[in-house]
Amino acid sequence: MPIRRRSASPKFRPLASHPAPTRLTLRGQSVLVRCGPLAGPEPLRFPLHRGRSVTPQDLRTRHPEHFAKAAALRVLAMDAVEAANSGHPGMPMGMADIATVLFEKHLKFDPKAPDWPDRDRFVLSNGHGSMLLYALLHLTGYDDMTLDELKNFRQLGSKTAGHPEYGFAKGIETTTGPLGQGLGAAVGMAMAEASLSARFSPRIVDHHTFVFVGDGCLMEGISHEAIGLAGKQQLSKLVVLWDDNGISIDGKVSKSDITDQPARFRAAGWDVFECDGHDPAAIDAAILSAKASAKPSLIACRTHIGYGAPNKQDTAGAHGSPLGADEIAAVREIYGWSHEPFVIPQDVRDAWAAIGAQGAAARTAWEERLEGLGKRRREQFDRIVAGELPKALTNQIRNFKSEQSAAAPKVATRKASEMVLEVINKALPETIGGSADLTGSNNTLTKDMGTFEPGNRNGRYVYYGIREHGMAAAMNGLALHGGVIPYGGTFLVFSDYARGAMRISALSGKRVIYVMTHDSIGLGEDGPTHQPVEHLAALRAMPNLNVYRPADVVETAEAWQCALETPDRPSVIALTRQGLPTVRTRHSTKNLSAQGAYILSESTAKRQVILLATGSEVSLAMEAQTQLEAKGIGTRVVSMPCEELFEQQDDRYRARVLPRGPVRIGIEAALRYGWDRWLTGERGSAAKAGFVGMESFGASAPAGDLFKHFGITADAVVERAEALL
Amino acid sequence: MPIRRRSASPKFRPLASHPAPTRLTLRGQSVLVRCGPLAGPEPLRFPLHRGRSVTPQDLRTRHPEHFAKAAALRVLAMDAVEAANSGHPGMPMGMADIATVLFEKHLKFDPKAPDWPDRDRFVLSNGHGSMLLYALLHLTGYDDMTLDELKNFRQLGSKTAGHPEYGFAKGIETTTGPLGQGLGAAVGMAMAEASLSARFSPRIVDHHTFVFVGDGCLMEGISHEAIGLAGKQQLSKLVVLWDDNGISIDGKVSKSDITDQPARFRAAGWDVFECDGHDPAAIDAAILSAKASAKPSLIACRTHIGYGAPNKQDTAGAHGSPLGADEIAAVREIYGWSHEPFVIPQDVRDAWAAIGAQGAAARTAWEERLEGLGKRRREQFDRIVAGELPKALTNQIRNFKSEQSAAAPKVATRKASEMVLEVINKALPETIGGSADLTGSNNTLTKDMGTFEPGNRNGRYVYYGIREHGMAAAMNGLALHGGVIPYGGTFLVFSDYARGAMRISALSGKRVIYVMTHDSIGLGEDGPTHQPVEHLAALRAMPNLNVYRPADVVETAEAWQCALETPDRPSVIALTRQGLPTVRTRHSTKNLSAQGAYILSESTAKRQVILLATGSEVSLAMEAQTQLEAKGIGTRVVSMPCEELFEQQDDRYRARVLPRGPVRIGIEAALRYGWDRWLTGERGSAAKAGFVGMESFGASAPAGDLFKHFGITADAVVERAEALL
Repeated sequence: MPIRRRSASPKFRPLASHPAPTRLTLRGQSVLVRCGPLAGPEPLRFPLHRGRSVTPQDLRTRHPEHFAKAAALRVLAMDAVEAANSGHPGMPMGMADIATVLFEKHLKFDPKAPDWPDRDRFVLSNGHGSMLLYALLHLTGYDDMTLDELKNFRQLGSKTAGHPEYGFAKGIETTTGPLGQGLGAAVGMAMAEASLSARFSPRIVDHHTFVFVGDGCLMEGISHEAIGLAGKQQLSKLVVLWDDNGISIDGKVSKSDITDQPARFRAAGWDVFECDGHDPAAIDAAILSAKASAKPSLIACRTHIGYGAPNKQDTAGAHGSPLGADEIAAVREIYGWSHEPFVIPQDVRDAWAAIGAQGAAARTAWEERLEGLGKRRREQFDRIVAGELPKALTNQIRNFKSEQSAAAPKVATRKASEMVLEVINKALPETIGGSADLTGSNNTLTKDMGTFEPGNRNGRYVYYGIREHGMAAAMNGLALHGGVIPYGGTFLVFSDYARGAMRISALSGKRVIYVMTHDSIGLGEDGPTHQPVEHLAALRAMPNLNVYRPADVVETAEAWQCALETPDRPSVIALTRQGLPTVRTRHSTKNLSAQGAYILSESTAKRQVILLATGSEVSLAMEAQTQLEAKGIGTRVVSMPCEELFEQQDDRYRARVLPRGPVRIGIEAALRYGWDRWLTGERGSAAKAGFVGMESFGASAPAGDLFKHFGITADAVVERAEALL
Repeated sequence: MPIRRRSASPKFRPLASHPAPTRLTLRGQSVLVRCGPLAGPEPLRFPLHRGRSVTPQDLRTRHPEHFAKAAALRVLAMDAVEAANSGHPGMPMGMADIATVLFEKHLKFDPKAPDWPDRDRFVLSNGHGSMLLYALLHLTGYDDMTLDELKNFRQLGSKTAGHPEYGFAKGIETTTGPLGQGLGAAVGMAMAEASLSARFSPRIVDHHTFVFVGDGCLMEGISHEAIGLAGKQQLSKLVVLWDDNGISIDGKVSKSDITDQPARFRAAGWDVFECDGHDPAAIDAAILSAKASAKPSLIACRTHIGYGAPNKQDTAGAHGSPLGADEIAAVREIYGWSHEPFVIPQDVRDAWAAIGAQGAAARTAWEERLEGLGKRRREQFDRIVAGELPKALTNQIRNFKSEQSAAAPKVATRKASEMVLEVINKALPETIGGSADLTGSNNTLTKDMGTFEPGNRNGRYVYYGIREHGMAAAMNGLALHGGVIPYGGTFLVFSDYARGAMRISALSGKRVIYVMTHDSIGLGEDGPTHQPVEHLAALRAMPNLNVYRPADVVETAEAWQCALETPDRPSVIALTRQGLPTVRTRHSTKNLSAQGAYILSESTAKRQVILLATGSEVSLAMEAQTQLEAKGIGTRVVSMPCEELFEQQDDRYRARVLPRGPVRIGIEAALRYGWDRWLTGERGSAAKAGFVGMESFGASAPAGDLFKHFGITADAVVERAEALL
């Protein structure tokens, strides 16, 4: 059933409207066991929790073919961890039955076309169980996941890193390991699907997002934000399978948590199903129910960590270290698995290969449907899936810059960002914007975007709520899914709340654009808790992330252009609350910000001073230049909107912008931390250097008072320069 | 009823066991309205939500005295925001009735003794409503909260910052504003109370922690971690009052969230009550019920943001900007309040003063009970409340260092930390340790601590669960409460998850000790997601936070000593997973780490090179020194366990440790970001400098392979030195 029809149905069914528990007959099988929607509010988990699962011996007898396939996953995981002498066998052994049923009966995928845009997404949020994923990719026939890769688990240069790393191998949909991130990203993937399905019809985009999560994922705060967002958005094609094994690293989960997870998910607007996570029929039925639900679904799968390990099953000992030779031998006996490590018998190999081959027909049929889409729409689909920008954009931004250079408005860069977003959002139907409940402050909403919500999947603006971390993670998922370009706003200071997910953006190398306003003490009265002083440094310290701090409306447009034209990196665009004069009053066709730093204003007298500034302090440097030049002190102003891009320039360019001789002063309404590099350090070269900026947390007062109080003024710059000369 | 008896009762009542709704007669009054425990699982909020509250006019008629007191709070907030032309009037106007009832009928406090250890704690987690707190403190008679302070709301140098800042004025129990942090801290305060009550008896420690939260607090992920922790810990004296006004900055909460909050809290093990947040009798009854509960309690208070503002009530327009002169005039009319701005009529002043005076008797009685505690116990109580360390500790750590210097073990510093914690935890009964589900990895648990849990409040070890942010926030609350010294562990990379709360530790200037292990690629196979490369820089960038990276067991002991002896700052102690040789084999009685950096090993030949290293790279510098000296190149090794402390030394000491002449090489298995300062920059002075460390994210492989792969070896250091010479 296509999502649009679903989302057009009444938005919120009352939470108590689950059908009463029933026995189901599915796929011609009688479903024997505890599966079906949960009834009522009773805390389900504790009374039912342990000890009723199918034992390995029973499972082997009752479902021999299933058991063999799942055993292959389990043994590969166990053996690879043993070979590496490092890793996590417990989760793959616990979730192998679920994975087998999911891949065999539900997951739409084709290992021969791993980038098929309409594939189901499979996310392993409990990423420490990475061997489960690697084993699945290997057995179903992903070319680059060879047996040698499995044997080289956790070794230098292998694709089989300790935790799944996006880009290392096909079929790894996102980088996971830091708990909860996969769940958060999956929400974004499901949002991307809903958006594209509305835009291109369910004939072209109609897939599920399946997520494996552990107790850790569900305890992390990010899970709350992700679940709340998914619940509000009623993402019916999102199915979360919870490895409810009752064990965390410190022992029983109950040592630290008594949360009734099913009740919690229902409270957030989800449907909840449950099953014995070792009973293939029950798993299958639960997934069927979840897929049929009009809400996002949690399937609580009761499992045993380290399933079948006689001494370690159901203990933290199975979680994060090799089982050891004796235990492995005992498991082999229980599984009836006599093969050497990494040897999979041909019949099991064939069975898994058949599973891997199942999706080819659907994929071919999809390609035919895509062919029928019509040339224009087909081209647009191909373009956005490839992540390419429309050719017209360059000119449109150039024109915008030209107009603004001429008009030279005094506007806050957050407002400038809104102005350029008006251009961008019109040119790029693939942008999906939003804010963590600061829309009017972040200036992230432009005309005619519409609200993305259950009743309007054509809307392109997301009210993320007060969920910075969840927003960042969802944006990772949007970008990873492809076909959309996400941007989202909050205050720069709250990058602290989102940092866990921002690091995933950087590790994954995806085009996620963070609009972070109120970027200094310039925000004024809200005070120290809201004033970033260390955040620029903390973000610049992160590899693979470009941090822009534009000085005016023109640089803001250039920053946006750079961010959009960098498909392999996330960007932060730090923007002011306060108004700033236009410093780029002479129009340059070229994107000067793309060089990271450039000469904004040259000295007229003999050059004795270079002022190196960013963002709101560039206009202050210009004032200081005027004063210094009036005193006969030749002064150059260099604007550095993005130090990461300046770093990428060649030595000659850098030396031209920042020659060795003159006194050099860095100016930024933030801490000096990290700045010495550009003054006398690695990339600096000045004999004498100073810095005008913050030395502590901020204070609560009107912005003008604060700049004076903290000595970030043109006068202070002039004084510093004179003292150094 | 003292907490110990409560906690000895059956730990978890079934979640569905709430008494059916009943009408209550309380304090001789018939309780008229919708108050009482919630029955059943039905989503309560939406059907009941709006439009049934007492109107201001009715409230004024029915409860004139209450109304006048609450109106004083409302008008002060409205007028102060107007005077500042900045701030948030909506929340104080919405929660004034709740605050009035809480302060009048429940809160145990004495403005003349604001540090009374057994006072109830009142936390304003929705800190943007700061004027509510300031007005309460002013009216109840806190000396330092003068009328002038209110008139100077949000101005430079005032105590009345935009958001409540701990330490600015008495009665501000914690810094809030970043949403959810107050709730998280309150959980720690309630834990501290439970711990101290068990230790010193409920005659000495027996108080509640009341928290005001808004929708934003409850949407943030940290709320999930805080609620989960409080639910597991069954903190019966924690009462959360939710400003359920249905409005956030972007408009209706339902734009971004449909969570059934009561159901969510019940799922986490809480009791939930509800009331009309403008009906004083209902509020009173709800608080009484909450106090009687054996669980932590949420009171869902249905309120109107901007209560009484004819055009802005119930809209986002009342949230974060001044109401404007016309609207204020209209509100005054509705309130029947004819006084000028900041003028409070004497009868209302007197009524509030009487409320402020209520607690004196209880405080005096408490002081008498404290007197009766017996000299030894009294001294201990005074000592821990004052945050002083036992005198014996210095010697004990000195002896430990002496033994370890002699034994020179090769141990991971995380293990060294455990070894010194054995000494510390024995000497300091006030430590409360824990880990975010990494106990065995963080080495945070020592002998005989016992588990802090509902059945054992004498336990001193907290299984925080997979909740880094919640743990950090709870530790803030523990430290803010006083009487305990919190430390908690996670991996250094997950400081990203905790950063929001860590910033509050730094802003508040409290002794919170973060034990962060697995501090580099030295953790090995877990790979890039788990390997911090930028985190030392990101943490060092934060003001008011000391970051230690000890080189061996001796420095680890010194780092712990420094952290404990710094009551006005949080500390991060970054520790290795991998074993390290002891480099401090010659015992020094003095704590050398307290100087931040020091000469560990002097050159024998003429000094040409200084190697400046931290943590695990200090032993590598020692190896390089041996090689360089063998080549006749005189080399000094400087260990820098804490750059913040080195920064605090005088110029002469710094110049002695790092003289200008020699080639200088920084060595740290992390990014160079921030290092130039110590090489050629602000605090550097070397003409030639280099750095051996990371240049990117890490990789998944055994640690030894990684150090080679990334070129962090003694050979690489030697090469770099020779190249620079």
